[in-house]
Amino acid sequence: MRCGAGIDARMVDELAINIDPIQAGGRLTADAMKAVIAYGDGYSVCDNCRKPNRLDYITKPPIAQFHKDLASWLNMDTARVIPGARRGFQAVAHTYVKPGNPVLLTSLSHYTEFLAIEEAGGVACEIPADGHLIVTADATAAKIEEVKKDFGRAPALAFIDHVDYQYGNVHDVQAIAKVAHQYDIPVLCNGAYTVGIMPVDGKNLGADFVVGSGHKSMAAPAPSGVLAATAEQAKDVFRTTAITGDVTGRKFGIKEPEMMGCTLMGVTLVGMMASFPHVKERVKHFDRELANTRIVVDALLSIQGTNVLSEYPRKHTLTRIDTTASFDTVAQSHKKRGFFFSGALSEKGVFGIIPGATRVWKFNTYGISKVQAQYLAQVFADIARENGLKTGS
Amino acid sequence: MRCGAGIDARMVDELAINIDPIQAGGRLTADAMKAVIAYGDGYSVCDNCRKPNRLDYITKPPIAQFHKDLASWLNMDTARVIPGARRGFQAVAHTYVKPGNPVLLTSLSHYTEFLAIEEAGGVACEIPADGHLIVTADATAAKIEEVKKDFGRAPALAFIDHVDYQYGNVHDVQAIAKVAHQYDIPVLCNGAYTVGIMPVDGKNLGADFVVGSGHKSMAAPAPSGVLAATAEQAKDVFRTTAITGDVTGRKFGIKEPEMMGCTLMGVTLVGMMASFPHVKERVKHFDRELANTRIVVDALLSIQGTNVLSEYPRKHTLTRIDTTASFDTVAQSHKKRGFFFSGALSEKGVFGIIPGATRVWKFNTYGISKVQAQYLAQVFADIARENGLKTGS
Repeated sequence: MRCGAGIDARMVDELAINIDPIQAGGRLTADAMKAVIAYGDGYSVCDNCRKPNRLDYITKPPIAQFHKDLASWLNMDTARVIPGARRGFQAVAHTYVKPGNPVLLTSLSHYTEFLAIEEAGGVACEIPADGHLIVTADATAAKIEEVKKDFGRAPALAFIDHVDYQYGNVHDVQAIAKVAHQYDIPVLCNGAYTVGIMPVDGKNLGADFVVGSGHKSMAAPAPSGVLAATAEQAKDVFRTTAITGDVTGRKFGIKEPEMMGCTLMGVTLVGMMASFPHVKERVKHFDRELANTRIVVDALLSIQGTNVLSEYPRKHTLTRIDTTASFDTVAQSHKKRGFFFSGALSEKGVFGIIPGATRVWKFNTYGISKVQAQYLAQVFADIARENGLKTGS
Repeated sequence: MRCGAGIDARMVDELAINIDPIQAGGRLTADAMKAVIAYGDGYSVCDNCRKPNRLDYITKPPIAQFHKDLASWLNMDTARVIPGARRGFQAVAHTYVKPGNPVLLTSLSHYTEFLAIEEAGGVACEIPADGHLIVTADATAAKIEEVKKDFGRAPALAFIDHVDYQYGNVHDVQAIAKVAHQYDIPVLCNGAYTVGIMPVDGKNLGADFVVGSGHKSMAAPAPSGVLAATAEQAKDVFRTTAITGDVTGRKFGIKEPEMMGCTLMGVTLVGMMASFPHVKERVKHFDRELANTRIVVDALLSIQGTNVLSEYPRKHTLTRIDTTASFDTVAQSHKKRGFFFSGALSEKGVFGIIPGATRVWKFNTYGISKVQAQYLAQVFADIARENGLKTGS
């Protein structure tokens, strides 16, 4: 089935249990799907844009209220929608980082945080995760002191991943932020894997900024996201334009340069908005999601030779697993090599593991039901047994 | 009908002739609508992302081919999709403009070009449009000389609107670029109102960059757009990342900092792709669109006191009209004031004129049929007659 010349209609989530590490939290809700159909046209949210002509002032659809609700839900003072979490990193880095400035992030940070630093001309300084792959307040303090010695100044900004993309481990943003603030370093909490997945209270975390991803974790179309700030930092990052035309004398009102004016003019924003009530509700039930993850992780651990590389017991649904001493031993002599594993998963209706991967791989059970989790557990155990691996059960 | 809590389903283009100045070129094609339904989920295009893990390398859906086709269609060497034309301005400004550098744009330039300059720390230098509201090569030469005198250097970059957003006038990018290049100034052609609307040949225009807007003119969801470059300039703006992690030694492959890595991970991109064959075809028939515009503009001009502020005869479907001496005289004594006009249009099934506006306003007939154009012409003439204005017919 095609949805355009050469473009096959995508039916992954209709036909399979999708445990792709980055896709699990971005599946649309039914309301978002309706919104996508109703607001597909470009500039569809601008029908009722009136002075002062800025996206977050539009009341029909209720975009203004959504912005207030987003900020309040994250327990921050101000929020803007953005085309992806990365554009939030970019705006904040551009505001605080001057060329040559050291900027803190972590040894588990996402590449887009590095790019934001690079674009601002900053120098990336990684706080090393500890032996348990957790970033700690102590390591943060040590790194800041090291940076001060090397650069003669404290870092200009800190990017701290609430949950990192590599292991899905939960880091103690609150304790880290407390240390950073002792050096007057503003802290951006990267909630790409938490905002929309589990409860996030920005002020309780001590974050100056909270960034979330619509397409990763808020059941919204791409590219979308949120940048929330405290009132104090909002003045910096959401400052309004000061430029004028030298001939016309034109000024540009309350447009915000770091946002490049309006950001999400249609389907992406309305998709986020339509999913929002469901997202607000689902974060309250993260315990159910964790219970499902544990069913699957425990099944994998019952396969002899399998290790979980993420912290254990799991505190997040994104998990990194090492099957070098289990499924990869099968791949060594299987005629399909590593593809036996993804092939078997596919035959059993499971999607989202990189084809060919049998050593270290990630999966995310977010959004599956308990029955699906039990089925997944069975699938992994069955593939193991069918290929002569020993299982604990 | 609602598509989410508090969100009314949008039915503007289903129920009315929509002549909104910014929305006309962004209405989805039927194929784009199918694509939006199939690819609504966040990260939906990443199912088959493999090494080197960059959006423009994905072959299923055929994103890699789309990038090549886009570049070739614009007669440029390289193209990237971006979250809106403004993000193309931002990337190019950030690449070429150092703090304090003068940057050329025009007295008719869009605010997002100003914001891009502001964000890069540049100084906006407007080339004044002439008495006919056209930006000329002569005015460009004069402005460059003025800038050289004032700043001791030539402008670092020039933003030239192919068709401006204020009047929909066509400017001679080719002649302007020739002048700019004599001073080694790279030229960005802002095709937000032309790419996807009328034929655009970047090399023939002499542009170093061509920027287009998906949601404004390529029948795509928002935010989307294209940044195309010559091979020479692509090396600058699409340079790959050079940052490394100081602890982990991590590098980030071929990700491009100005793009912040991948850009449109789902519905926005596939919407653009699905519309693309139709968009390529429709630009060949711009003459039909102009014929429709002329029917409507001539009807407006037949109403005594009405002037067209855009160049005439019209060369684009976006038109600025002055009805201060016609419809606004009615508004002066009408019990609904200026709202009589938008109210009457609405009753007759026409959408897109700012409610209350009776002096200077804009409309865009792009995409309507000849029959609809004739109907629109009749509607304007009828509203005039019904309110006691003289018409030439």
